[in-house]
Amino acid sequence: MSKVNLAEKFALIQDFWAPKIAGELNGQYVKLAKFRGEFVWHQHPNEDELFLVTHGKLTIQLRDRDVTLSEGEFYIVPAGVEHRPVAAEEVHAVMLEPISTLNTGNVTNERTRKELEWI
Amino acid sequence: MSKVNLAEKFALIQDFWAPKIAGELNGQYVKLAKFRGEFVWHQHPNEDELFLVTHGKLTIQLRDRDVTLSEGEFYIVPAGVEHRPVAAEEVHAVMLEPISTLNTGNVTNERTRKELEWI
Repeated sequence: MSKVNLAEKFALIQDFWAPKIAGELNGQYVKLAKFRGEFVWHQHPNEDELFLVTHGKLTIQLRDRDVTLSEGEFYIVPAGVEHRPVAAEEVHAVMLEPISTLNTGNVTNERTRKELEWI
Repeated sequence: MSKVNLAEKFALIQDFWAPKIAGELNGQYVKLAKFRGEFVWHQHPNEDELFLVTHGKLTIQLRDRDVTLSEGEFYIVPAGVEHRPVAAEEVHAVMLEPISTLNTGNVTNERTRKELEWI
């Protein structure tokens, strides 16, 4: 693979809540996504999920508190923990999770993205 | 765990080439390290290794070419590929690799760090 320039890749992403694959290592994908608005509550029973914000401010709602990430901050949602990403304005986030992880976790609905594209 | 602010964590790191653990997910560690100067040639037989630069310019020498990363760029060194990180000036890098990965890979010398600390 070649190196990945995050800003160049994010410039290619047009849809919100539609993660793209930017790298693969050790059974995990590095994914890039733009968020705006509210996602759905969900959890990943067996998979930890990392969110690193590179633009904007992302709130990860948990059932007992909110975690708000600004540029240059990351948080790891442990497996099995219900969460809902919320972004009042556009957010760019790098995610890291196993190849098997679905964006909506244990929930399947119109926001589920089963076949991800590389970017 | 709490969220991690990368700049705050890097401000705590004083030594070069001494990775600190900043997160754990799915059998991998997120590590933070400052680099300056030349490291040793090595490879990790079974482990892919991601380098994301958040400050400075890092050259990852490969046997057939160099990959130079600026802030906001990442590269994944595939398992088994010999590499040597080189930084003319101070670099801050986020690394992602399995918990089992040694910083000097297949080489053990005075630069090997076997017991990493959390930061």
